Amino acid sequence: MPQINSERLLNDLRRFAQFGAYQSGVHRPTFSADDMAARTWLMQKYEEAGLLASIDGAGNVFGRHPGVGRCLLVGSHAESQNHAGWLDGALGVIYGLEIARAFRDSGEAASSGIDAVAWSDEETHFIPFLGSRSFIGDLSEDEIDGAQDRTTGKLLRTALAEAGLTDRARDVINPSRYVGYLEAHIEQGDYLDATGLRVGVVTSIVGIWQYRVRVEGEQNHAGTTRMAVRKDAGVALMRLCSAIEEAFPMAAGPRSVWTVGKVDYDPGAPSIIPGRAEMLFQFRDEDPERLNRLEAELERLVTEANRTGPCRVVLELVSKTAPKRMDPHFQDAFEAAAERHAPEKWIRMPSGAGHDAQVLARRLPAAMLFVPSIGGISHHWTENTTDADIVLGCQVLSDAAAAILHGAT
Amino acid sequence: MPQINSERLLNDLRRFAQFGAYQSGVHRPTFSADDMAARTWLMQKYEEAGLLASIDGAGNVFGRHPGVGRCLLVGSHAESQNHAGWLDGALGVIYGLEIARAFRDSGEAASSGIDAVAWSDEETHFIPFLGSRSFIGDLSEDEIDGAQDRTTGKLLRTALAEAGLTDRARDVINPSRYVGYLEAHIEQGDYLDATGLRVGVVTSIVGIWQYRVRVEGEQNHAGTTRMAVRKDAGVALMRLCSAIEEAFPMAAGPRSVWTVGKVDYDPGAPSIIPGRAEMLFQFRDEDPERLNRLEAELERLVTEANRTGPCRVVLELVSKTAPKRMDPHFQDAFEAAAERHAPEKWIRMPSGAGHDAQVLARRLPAAMLFVPSIGGISHHWTENTTDADIVLGCQVLSDAAAAILHGAT
Repeated sequence: MPQINSERLLNDLRRFAQFGAYQSGVHRPTFSADDMAARTWLMQKYEEAGLLASIDGAGNVFGRHPGVGRCLLVGSHAESQNHAGWLDGALGVIYGLEIARAFRDSGEAASSGIDAVAWSDEETHFIPFLGSRSFIGDLSEDEIDGAQDRTTGKLLRTALAEAGLTDRARDVINPSRYVGYLEAHIEQGDYLDATGLRVGVVTSIVGIWQYRVRVEGEQNHAGTTRMAVRKDAGVALMRLCSAIEEAFPMAAGPRSVWTVGKVDYDPGAPSIIPGRAEMLFQFRDEDPERLNRLEAELERLVTEANRTGPCRVVLELVSKTAPKRMDPHFQDAFEAAAERHAPEKWIRMPSGAGHDAQVLARRLPAAMLFVPSIGGISHHWTENTTDADIVLGCQVLSDAAAAILHGAT
Repeated sequence: MPQINSERLLNDLRRFAQFGAYQSGVHRPTFSADDMAARTWLMQKYEEAGLLASIDGAGNVFGRHPGVGRCLLVGSHAESQNHAGWLDGALGVIYGLEIARAFRDSGEAASSGIDAVAWSDEETHFIPFLGSRSFIGDLSEDEIDGAQDRTTGKLLRTALAEAGLTDRARDVINPSRYVGYLEAHIEQGDYLDATGLRVGVVTSIVGIWQYRVRVEGEQNHAGTTRMAVRKDAGVALMRLCSAIEEAFPMAAGPRSVWTVGKVDYDPGAPSIIPGRAEMLFQFRDEDPERLNRLEAELERLVTEANRTGPCRVVLELVSKTAPKRMDPHFQDAFEAAAERHAPEKWIRMPSGAGHDAQVLARRLPAAMLFVPSIGGISHHWTENTTDADIVLGCQVLSDAAAAILHGAT
């Protein structure tokens, strides 16, 4: 069974965190100079590991096994959120590199083995899951034309040109090459940390349904317009939020979550009654039927708000991702490996966050493994995981990969 | 009795609206090039009317009667809100000019008469009531040092220098010169227009109490953080808004108004639970006791929110203006003049908006007259009033001024 090298793993993770270092985390937006430097470094490490390194027109970095047999694709995304943690994405990327090295060092699976990968822009600086969606053939040139950096407004086309990627083709999957896709990630929640568990075997990745709710009222002077004749878009939006808070717990499951992430009143001045108001609303669940039920509830509340008046409420769908079940045989392999290295310290659990694995799962058997996040912190530079848990997670993933490849080839 | 010249009045109002013309309204922010050109033009018109014209270090433009007797100060503010109406402020300014001319033409009150005035920045591009507060001695150099344009961020000191006002002294009132202050304004609400009335005799200007409410929760991932453990600052703020909407009608009077004008969630991203949320809240009433009652209610709701948790709610006072009763004898003079020119087409009413008259009322007897706003529109470039109502309002104000001066001198 291939053995990972703990020191090499931790050193490479720490080296990777120097690209765009920010406090104890990193600031490495997609296609920034720091992100591209990290990807270039990674190609060199892939080459040193005996893999065939390349970067494609979507910024995905591949380290392909030189053999002719079928492979497991192992990785995650290389960029970070703005001013965020050092492990989100990077952990899974360096696991892929280390597991490929462990397989090479063990002399096992000479003809088949590990393809390591680092996807681009899972974090949606430009387009959600840009790299993995490109790889499964689900990203159009039109979508690339229209995209811009959500922070700076820079066009994606400009960013790709500055990164030197314009003339490269985008690689699209050849499914017959792969046994499947494995990804490790920090949990981004506090469940493992709070319960003293060390490995999460992901059962499914939740579906995320996102909406924009726009309210149209009547802008007016906040001093001279009597309460009785107002059409205050802000008040109407707030009433809808209240109705959601009251109704959703009844329609929700035990792990459903829903969030108003952003609210805007227009024009947003202290002495003007808001004429328009808008919010971003989302909910998540692993059960497609429950997602339908939550949407029906939201639609009912919006209809009710329009019936009551005096403002007009418009519900716009922003995006829907389908919940994705992880491959059950891969889950069994994770479970066996986890029980061997950390008896009774693992659990099966859904992922409340989205991951590249849900995109790959549309073309390949896919599975995910979680390591604990200290304090549940995520998307913040204080995000962290103990060295022991980082090492454990990598060995469990490596053992599972060996078992899966052994069974498949 | 002095007679105003309708054509001269309307021509000058239309000429004044050419400074910073925008659609059918004006864009004339305080101390902008257009605002300063309008003030320079006004000084010339004051001179032509036989007044002693000057501009002071706060940008106030005065046209002083050359006699030695006591005067009535008549005017309003010259600047506009951004991309707003042609009459807000300008109407009262040109009324002051026209009434001074009508008095001169009539040969009445040779030793006493009208001082015309155009205040600066009632509209709070930099500082609320900058000009009138400077004139009553209530504006410190420190406050000027700290102020900047709310739209552009330009320092007030820079704007004053660019306007050529740096070396001018700020004129402070000599109360013994004045019998009182009169101001005319568009209503900025729909009451007169909706009821077919033509003149509003203002009884009082409401007090405006403004607050910032800050909520501190815990920023977290919107997918991986269970509903039960969240400290969602946005949800807490929305609950407080709901509680206000429920409780305020009970504590309010018939003309109380309250408004949440602006809401911000931080960081304001679709997949992040807001860690902080903030709103601007204000209420207005003409009764000081009722203002106290509404504030007590707000404080009670904030205390209740903190008792319930899980977020911390902090209430910060932003500003309080005291309600100001208009001078009862001046109101009687307005009423008599209105009844003469528009029998039964006038009404006594409070002002829900703030005006320079509330500042002057701290040093002088002061009164205000409203003309109708078509459709109640205000702070928008479609704001308008019929020519007939504009002319009527000026003659009523002129008659009232003559009666007041006659009684006082």
